[in-house]
Amino acid sequence: MLIQDIRNSIVDIADLNQLKFDLNRLQPVDVGEYISQLPEKQRAIAFRLLNKSQAIDVFEYLPPEVQEELINSLHDVQVVQLVEAMSPDDRAELFDELPAKVVKRLLQELSTEQRQATATILGYAEATAGRLMTTEYVWLREGLTVGEALSKIRRQDEDKETIYYAYVTDDNRKLVRVVSLRQLLFTFPDVLIKEIASDRVLKVHTETPQEDVAQIMKRYDLIALPVVDREERLVGIITIDDVVDILEEEATEDIQKLAGVSGDDGALAHPLVTIRKRLPWLLAIMGLYIGASSAIAPFQGVISSVPVLAVIMPLFSNTGGTVGVQALTVTIRGLGIGEITTKDTLKILRKELTAGLATAVTLGITMVMLSMIWAQPQERWVGFVAGIVMATNTLVAVTLGTFLPMGLKRLKLDPALISGPLMTTLLDAIGFVTFLSMISVALHFFK
Amino acid sequence: MLIQDIRNSIVDIADLNQLKFDLNRLQPVDVGEYISQLPEKQRAIAFRLLNKSQAIDVFEYLPPEVQEELINSLHDVQVVQLVEAMSPDDRAELFDELPAKVVKRLLQELSTEQRQATATILGYAEATAGRLMTTEYVWLREGLTVGEALSKIRRQDEDKETIYYAYVTDDNRKLVRVVSLRQLLFTFPDVLIKEIASDRVLKVHTETPQEDVAQIMKRYDLIALPVVDREERLVGIITIDDVVDILEEEATEDIQKLAGVSGDDGALAHPLVTIRKRLPWLLAIMGLYIGASSAIAPFQGVISSVPVLAVIMPLFSNTGGTVGVQALTVTIRGLGIGEITTKDTLKILRKELTAGLATAVTLGITMVMLSMIWAQPQERWVGFVAGIVMATNTLVAVTLGTFLPMGLKRLKLDPALISGPLMTTLLDAIGFVTFLSMISVALHFFK
Repeated sequence: MLIQDIRNSIVDIADLNQLKFDLNRLQPVDVGEYISQLPEKQRAIAFRLLNKSQAIDVFEYLPPEVQEELINSLHDVQVVQLVEAMSPDDRAELFDELPAKVVKRLLQELSTEQRQATATILGYAEATAGRLMTTEYVWLREGLTVGEALSKIRRQDEDKETIYYAYVTDDNRKLVRVVSLRQLLFTFPDVLIKEIASDRVLKVHTETPQEDVAQIMKRYDLIALPVVDREERLVGIITIDDVVDILEEEATEDIQKLAGVSGDDGALAHPLVTIRKRLPWLLAIMGLYIGASSAIAPFQGVISSVPVLAVIMPLFSNTGGTVGVQALTVTIRGLGIGEITTKDTLKILRKELTAGLATAVTLGITMVMLSMIWAQPQERWVGFVAGIVMATNTLVAVTLGTFLPMGLKRLKLDPALISGPLMTTLLDAIGFVTFLSMISVALHFFK
Repeated sequence: MLIQDIRNSIVDIADLNQLKFDLNRLQPVDVGEYISQLPEKQRAIAFRLLNKSQAIDVFEYLPPEVQEELINSLHDVQVVQLVEAMSPDDRAELFDELPAKVVKRLLQELSTEQRQATATILGYAEATAGRLMTTEYVWLREGLTVGEALSKIRRQDEDKETIYYAYVTDDNRKLVRVVSLRQLLFTFPDVLIKEIASDRVLKVHTETPQEDVAQIMKRYDLIALPVVDREERLVGIITIDDVVDILEEEATEDIQKLAGVSGDDGALAHPLVTIRKRLPWLLAIMGLYIGASSAIAPFQGVISSVPVLAVIMPLFSNTGGTVGVQALTVTIRGLGIGEITTKDTLKILRKELTAGLATAVTLGITMVMLSMIWAQPQERWVGFVAGIVMATNTLVAVTLGTFLPMGLKRLKLDPALISGPLMTTLLDAIGFVTFLSMISVALHFFK
């Protein structure tokens, strides 16, 4: 059931009995979204209609600001129950947002086990495997039999995020093997787990960046990935549901940066966020243009005497920019999904230049033909200059579109720092100055 | 271990014994990538070094063209073993690519069960749930006890894609409940499964588009999703690993289309593919510009007499385009990740216009100030006109950036059909004509 259906199914908000029935029957994520969209005062009322287990599930799906609001408006006992039941990774995310005083009070109320789990996760930097992991996983010692392992799994409480993979450690808690619940179920109980568990364990370190975690889980089709500390000791696992969200966030970031938008500026963002996130890019581009324009300004006389330039230049600028942004986009996305690395720079450049050459010739010829149509007979020579500059500009555009993001990546910077608008501005500056200089020189000979 | 490490670990390709050891030890996806990158003649040699179970796993990770090559170069017996062991959804994907003759021969060689499974999947349209699903899932009848269910799961062969969820059907094979292996393990054996299985079963129909499947699995954090036919009978399940790939593909498509790139034009594409995919967009933009330019051409005289326009117009065009592409990107991505629907059009438009107004004023004022710097004293009035047009152009840009993709979506077309370059060209045409007309009118009064 998608959110549209839920909006319809909760027709009459005034009917509290019906609402209570609906809210306890629907999926927690949908109820979370419904409650978040209510006016502030109604949120706590709706939340109190949930029975305990639904309340616990729904709470994890609420955005941190709504969680904070509820923490302030519910009874302390209820709050502690909710926070205690959260999985440690979600709790760490909430604590990041709450005022330090509230966090301190809540930490004191938690059970020792949950307090330690939260403290561990909060100890790692944001956007790393350590922060993303949960400490609720199944681990087994090497010496167990399959039967013992299965009954250990059954004895553990139901809190574990996944029981479908169990991680096998040696006496020093070092991660050595992994075994799936499926393997355990299909094996005779008296077999030793080390005989069936695989020693090809994929793992990440606590400081591994979240993008790398996501790429590894995607590549190897994993539903859980163990996290180890510097001594290779098992400290947590990351589950696929968190990774799906990260892959989508990373893609959104790439898209937004390419367009000169960033961060939390989604379709539903507050107008002030939108302004704060977009205006700086626009002003930066205008700033760059001041530089570019002071390079064009001396050519005002040239433009005056060859007015067809006013028609040709926008076409020139738009086409060159598009070529550059195409190469830029393909390179940034290729790096983003792990299809290419900086080692491929020359290979990609060779391919882009090969394709670029054909594009350059086609666009150059088209440019000459268009200029012929627009220009006065005595200005037709301008078309040939435009064609040549269009062609070279195309090659410059694909080279920069490939090389700049690769260079940033090699410097360990974000390749998407080169946004589309930045690329366009850069190409405009280079292209216009080349073009206008050539026209000036040509004017000398023709006049 | 990432692909870079593997390239290093397989140092000496000449040493076949070492290579054989490495290829059988590494992860199937890495071996698949390694083999795909070998020269054509070496691929079959490398593949023959794999032991049977590794060969079966690796084969599923090879791209269809390499699979086809191997099918032609391996012995028939081996081919049948490989194809028989593939999961039905991967096999359907391969059969899509193979010549009909080869498919027919292979289908005859398959076991009845696998042949039926493949035929079922091939019967559904591409990019739908039916095509994406596997028929290897666990299903239980309502009347079983937990103990009977567990021993049924254990008795089934190990082929099932996931055993972590079992789907409960009534006597007509209609899907009625779902139960997790975890629930089964934590319950006493004599309890009836219908007492613990949930009747809140999320499911999709065979014809549900793959984007919707992906959004549902992401939203509800599912690792498997059942697929039913029109009579609500269970016919297959979709697993999270397939969905992760789809989410990434959809994001890549959105990014590429925004930049005026499309389809298979990845960073590693063949130059001919790159040319074929990008050049049409470029020529289309040039074509549009012919229209736009014939609108600008009559103003050549105006530009001649006010040369500062040559400096102002590119800035004007680039900034207006960026504003439009920002709004466009946020809207397309919002629709892509299911954050907004066409019902939100007015809401988003209101927000974009609010933010746009502030942007318009800022950019307008900046434009006036910049024109003051560049223009001759007698041309300063141009700056005020430029400022006003810049401001109105900003509002037009955010309106079009929001409205066009929403409109396409409402017409059930792909909102990303409005690419960035198309947006820029459109805004240029509107902006230039407005600007130059206002300047012409003003010239009448001033001269």
